[in-house]
Amino acid sequence: MMIPTLDDIAAAAERIKGIAVRTPLVRNDLLDEITGARIWVKAENLQRGGAFKMRGATNAIAALTPEVRARGVLAFSSGNHAIAVSTAARIFGVGATIVMPADAPRIKLDTTRANGAEVITYDRVNESREAIGAKVSGERGLALIKPFDDPFVIAGQGTAGREIGEEISPDIVLCPGSGGGLASGIAIALPQAKLFAIEPEGHDDITRSLKSGKRERNAPGIRSICDGLLTEEMGDITYEIARTRFAGALSIPEIEVKRAMAFAFRNLKLVLEPSGAIALAAALTGAVEIKGKTVAVIASGGNVDQPTFIDALNA
Amino acid sequence: MMIPTLDDIAAAAERIKGIAVRTPLVRNDLLDEITGARIWVKAENLQRGGAFKMRGATNAIAALTPEVRARGVLAFSSGNHAIAVSTAARIFGVGATIVMPADAPRIKLDTTRANGAEVITYDRVNESREAIGAKVSGERGLALIKPFDDPFVIAGQGTAGREIGEEISPDIVLCPGSGGGLASGIAIALPQAKLFAIEPEGHDDITRSLKSGKRERNAPGIRSICDGLLTEEMGDITYEIARTRFAGALSIPEIEVKRAMAFAFRNLKLVLEPSGAIALAAALTGAVEIKGKTVAVIASGGNVDQPTFIDALNA
Repeated sequence: MMIPTLDDIAAAAERIKGIAVRTPLVRNDLLDEITGARIWVKAENLQRGGAFKMRGATNAIAALTPEVRARGVLAFSSGNHAIAVSTAARIFGVGATIVMPADAPRIKLDTTRANGAEVITYDRVNESREAIGAKVSGERGLALIKPFDDPFVIAGQGTAGREIGEEISPDIVLCPGSGGGLASGIAIALPQAKLFAIEPEGHDDITRSLKSGKRERNAPGIRSICDGLLTEEMGDITYEIARTRFAGALSIPEIEVKRAMAFAFRNLKLVLEPSGAIALAAALTGAVEIKGKTVAVIASGGNVDQPTFIDALNA
Repeated sequence: MMIPTLDDIAAAAERIKGIAVRTPLVRNDLLDEITGARIWVKAENLQRGGAFKMRGATNAIAALTPEVRARGVLAFSSGNHAIAVSTAARIFGVGATIVMPADAPRIKLDTTRANGAEVITYDRVNESREAIGAKVSGERGLALIKPFDDPFVIAGQGTAGREIGEEISPDIVLCPGSGGGLASGIAIALPQAKLFAIEPEGHDDITRSLKSGKRERNAPGIRSICDGLLTEEMGDITYEIARTRFAGALSIPEIEVKRAMAFAFRNLKLVLEPSGAIALAAALTGAVEIKGKTVAVIASGGNVDQPTFIDALNA
């Protein structure tokens, strides 16, 4: 198993330069006042493609040999990884085939197709995306760009942490957790900080895994407003990093996620998708003790359908 | 009449450092594709207080002598200048009295009060804010922080242009125009760029002034979704700068402003208020010829009430 290092993240930062963007750290007086902390929100919703996933996808595709890359790439994804892989593939001038759940947010399906990717949909409850992905990959000789359990993808996501570390020295990082690619990359990039993975209520495998000391799974088919955080379980690499590098994990109720989206609308002037607002929710609710601390909150993405967004504003 | 210079803007940049924030320039693939230009959106909605006004207010208050400042400051404003002056006053530890129209967006009234300012409301159609402001100022010995026709305010707003110039060399700048403080500050900061002031339809005094060669006024009492752009006329200084430095001005229908807000929601992941989206609307509609050009679009603010925002998404 290859665990990425700080050097791998530095190499990723070079590879993604000019393709993924350096996102701002957003400050807000009211947020500091409410939490009693000094909070910097890493606005990955302003990342190209609307989510952090562009970092890992770009690094992984850039690291392929030109021959392998030319045959095209494949990804299976609930949405933001699909957008990222299709965007990066377009930039590298290669074909992309994306396996997506049929009930993925419309905006994510549409954006992926608009990038010129071939989208294959599947039933999230009754079919396995991994099985479909493996079949298509084998048939067409495509390079699989995994959503999280890949050292290049993890190192790519870690560049978000590297950028944070170039501007501030956070005591605590609050980061959405699911497959664990983003959280584990940032944990490696910011070894001095305590990283907490934040999960949707009812889908708390990281929390349970850190407690039990073995990798736990979620029951398949659970729905949540946080459509980007519904992975069944962590991967081999991300679990190993979570086990050894995370300070903790905890879950947040859906209503608090909606309130955090509304807070971001009203005060940060940022459009966050539910998965992208969950770490902010952890800060606003005091679910993690952050008083007096310097805190980085990862706002991982902003690809949200209009009805979901409006529902959150009215919550 | 004192016209601010590049040196004045450089001095302002020093004064506001650590108080106002350096806002990001946001890129978007779809925006470039639609317009055929290379567009950088200056996200002043991410400015402290949610709008560019923080720059000018901070510079003007910082430039007061400590004795004058200690007596407190006064401002009359439709909203964002109110938020900015009250925020800056709080930071400098002095009192603020703000004269605001009674029909200003709720979020702007609330935020100003939350900053500890005393808010005096007036009827936008039947009362003159200037008269009320002058009366209160005289009675209490407060220093008036004008919303735009002040060299320190203009120089402060110009720091947004200075920041743009440190990152890119735009051929064209599209900027909301009303009193003209922001547009004239940026025009001075970026002398090589062609600046166009963008106004709401029916409230196009800058457009008419540049055509007629004399300062034109708007009929009082006109309503528009662009609540931040309803000044009766430019000031002496801003008109002089507009006359000599603007490349042009034009007005945009309300429906296009709403569509630009929806575009910013869906693609830029930014919350823009109507006034803050009007320059983006000019880019999206092709109202200014920008094909093949490097363009800075000023997204001046994001302080929008929820119903107005939702209405724009559904437009």
